[in-house]
Amino acid sequence: MKEILQKIKPSKQEEKKLRDISNELISKIKERVKKLDSRIEVKLVGSCSRNTWLRYEKDLDIFLLFPREYSKKELEKVVENIGKEILEKLQKKYAEHPYVKGEFKGYDVELVPCYLIESPRNMVSSVDRTPFHDRFVRENIKGKEDEVRILKQFLKGISCYGAESKVEGFSGYLCELLIIKYGSFLNVLENATRWKFGEVVQFGDLSKKKLRRKFPNSPLIFVDPVDENRNVASALSEEKFARFVYAAKEYLRNPKYTFFFPKKRKKCKRDVISKFKKRGTEIFAIIFEKPDILDDILYPQLRKTIKRLKKALKEREFIVEGSFFSVSDRKVAIYFELRSSKLPKAKLHLGPFVSSSHEERFLRKYKSYDKKLTEPFIIGKRWAIILERKYRDVRIFISDILKKGNGIPTHIMEAIRKKFEVKLNEEAILDEFLEDLLQYFDPRFPWEN
Amino acid sequence: MKEILQKIKPSKQEEKKLRDISNELISKIKERVKKLDSRIEVKLVGSCSRNTWLRYEKDLDIFLLFPREYSKKELEKVVENIGKEILEKLQKKYAEHPYVKGEFKGYDVELVPCYLIESPRNMVSSVDRTPFHDRFVRENIKGKEDEVRILKQFLKGISCYGAESKVEGFSGYLCELLIIKYGSFLNVLENATRWKFGEVVQFGDLSKKKLRRKFPNSPLIFVDPVDENRNVASALSEEKFARFVYAAKEYLRNPKYTFFFPKKRKKCKRDVISKFKKRGTEIFAIIFEKPDILDDILYPQLRKTIKRLKKALKEREFIVEGSFFSVSDRKVAIYFELRSSKLPKAKLHLGPFVSSSHEERFLRKYKSYDKKLTEPFIIGKRWAIILERKYRDVRIFISDILKKGNGIPTHIMEAIRKKFEVKLNEEAILDEFLEDLLQYFDPRFPWEN
Repeated sequence: MKEILQKIKPSKQEEKKLRDISNELISKIKERVKKLDSRIEVKLVGSCSRNTWLRYEKDLDIFLLFPREYSKKELEKVVENIGKEILEKLQKKYAEHPYVKGEFKGYDVELVPCYLIESPRNMVSSVDRTPFHDRFVRENIKGKEDEVRILKQFLKGISCYGAESKVEGFSGYLCELLIIKYGSFLNVLENATRWKFGEVVQFGDLSKKKLRRKFPNSPLIFVDPVDENRNVASALSEEKFARFVYAAKEYLRNPKYTFFFPKKRKKCKRDVISKFKKRGTEIFAIIFEKPDILDDILYPQLRKTIKRLKKALKEREFIVEGSFFSVSDRKVAIYFELRSSKLPKAKLHLGPFVSSSHEERFLRKYKSYDKKLTEPFIIGKRWAIILERKYRDVRIFISDILKKGNGIPTHIMEAIRKKFEVKLNEEAILDEFLEDLLQYFDPRFPWEN
Repeated sequence: MKEILQKIKPSKQEEKKLRDISNELISKIKERVKKLDSRIEVKLVGSCSRNTWLRYEKDLDIFLLFPREYSKKELEKVVENIGKEILEKLQKKYAEHPYVKGEFKGYDVELVPCYLIESPRNMVSSVDRTPFHDRFVRENIKGKEDEVRILKQFLKGISCYGAESKVEGFSGYLCELLIIKYGSFLNVLENATRWKFGEVVQFGDLSKKKLRRKFPNSPLIFVDPVDENRNVASALSEEKFARFVYAAKEYLRNPKYTFFFPKKRKKCKRDVISKFKKRGTEIFAIIFEKPDILDDILYPQLRKTIKRLKKALKEREFIVEGSFFSVSDRKVAIYFELRSSKLPKAKLHLGPFVSSSHEERFLRKYKSYDKKLTEPFIIGKRWAIILERKYRDVRIFISDILKKGNGIPTHIMEAIRKKFEVKLNEEAILDEFLEDLLQYFDPRFPWEN
């Protein structure tokens, strides 16, 4: 564990440097703010403020707390002006709330305006809650900062760190709360081995039943100590929850270094192709330019696209064995593994019960139907007919669907409308996506590499 | 209609001949019976007795009614002895009850012993009820015998005549009751067009709800007028019920001669093969010697075999598009049409929920499993693994199943154990079974040929 800490804990020197720079930055901001309104507070929040940051994290989150009479427009204006004066490479960002991003002496800085409120109950947007998070952690984390660091690195190693849509994992704040709750990294793991889907963790004693009804699809419900209406783990997916629980068990059985620092897998195209061919299944990939949107929009839309296409494939009786997507620097590929990319021409179409009210319509419809291979006949109680399948080749079906685009999220559809390719089998195994292809065909956990 | 009757109604001459011969036979039997016990009655029953027989039916059903003190063994002995003296080509038969079959002056004769009872409520076996049926029909059918004949021929033409397992259709008695109930052939059809599955027909007024509960799987419930605990239509299958209802509608719309006398279809092997190939599916046939058992045992066992194999194929993920069997003089073929006769090597095997009580067993099982293509991994909430399919070729799977024989009825299994072949696609299209193959690949109703 010492060895791990050595790699991830900032040195005294690094810490001093961070403190110096953040102090410099804050006083610069304060100077400017004072001229505007002495009631506006400036606060460093996040892992730097709480002393739980990792060596390679270079983020300074600075919050400006405004009295309630300011409008959102005014908030935006203030941070924009200050950002312009102090930061380099300024970017305006919009989440629920406006903020700016930039650089200051090599550190990534976020300048976020929020309202100064007495209690999270009065918050206008969720950023208003952040200073309360910060205070709660600072008041409770003393002496356990390194445990937080170790937990974060563990989660990073098993690809479960981060609440952003790309990861769907554990946020830094959630890590801190887990350490506050259970006292140490090992205690968190030990408790996690007993977690079930829908697990409830809290500092209070709210009814678990009510909480599960309130957050019905959350694998983990961690009640926010500063706002009991919020689940801190709301971004955590079932899969990442499951992976963490299993990793905790495995680590306690066999505490390997690779949980924290997994080896990179050697990718070799020939190896991936041979693994694919051994299966005897078929794959196809839909490939298009990566749309220029935030990851937090891209990833959910990709997940929705896969869901939509899977449903469409099933309706047409293509049997989906698996699916995933892969995002490279410039392109996106959506992969499907199928039992077969082709279907026979004929399919049995079951109709209504004989003598039911739908009988006549069925018989009339197929009397002069040009896609029938037989006349209607009776199987048991029901009418049936053998029809020609509309789609026998998955490539044609998928191309048709993508041209129509029903139900496919807008940004993905826009990218696809510009240009897309559908590639089959070996041709779909492209260097650009090799890492994810290898992971798909030989799915091992990061610590097992 | 006259034209039909001319073809099926026995001429005066034929009728006289039948009466003469049956009288001669009956007096011979009576002579012998009198010596034994004067209380034993001899009766001609069935369509000859009721004057509803068709020209080509040459069956004389003669019942011997014994007092109750006789044992079954004695009944058997008496008919056997009489049969030996009077009939040629004597055969002993066992249904629920012993009886003998033979020939007399070119007629097929059945000699059936039963008990003389006051009411069907006291019957020992179902044959005891037959004399009551006979009496009910004779008392009610007068003047409508030809309507019965026309209905019988109609049912024959659409392959729905006969309660035996091979046909699963309408018995002669059911035809007579339908005419008694509705008055005429056309009235029967008109009523049938409104029949729904679970239709109740009766002379009394029993609760339909109770009757449906009593005969839950009968598409038609015709309450026996001599025994309200019996459904006269109990042998009728859903499919034959459905066919009759549809044929009734079609006949009333367009009363063609071919309903009564369908044309035989021209069978041509090349035609069948081309129809099969157009579908793009695959077929396989299990072929074995026809077992030397009654049709009433063979056909239900074949249906059960198909059901069993269909279930097994589905469990192994072979997709069954259709199935049927065909019985030739000496052989039986069971056919299945499949989406594909081959499956890819790999299949996705979903395991228990992560962190459930089954997790450990699952992981332990697949730790050193030689048929795995990947390690266990997590999809959503669940464990999963890619395994090698045990059976990728339907022929190997079917051969294995047939060698084990679990759940396959005994007589079929005995025949298969002696020898069986599994043939695929074109090779499975054999002259011997061509008629049924043609019917399967081009399923038209008999009257549409």
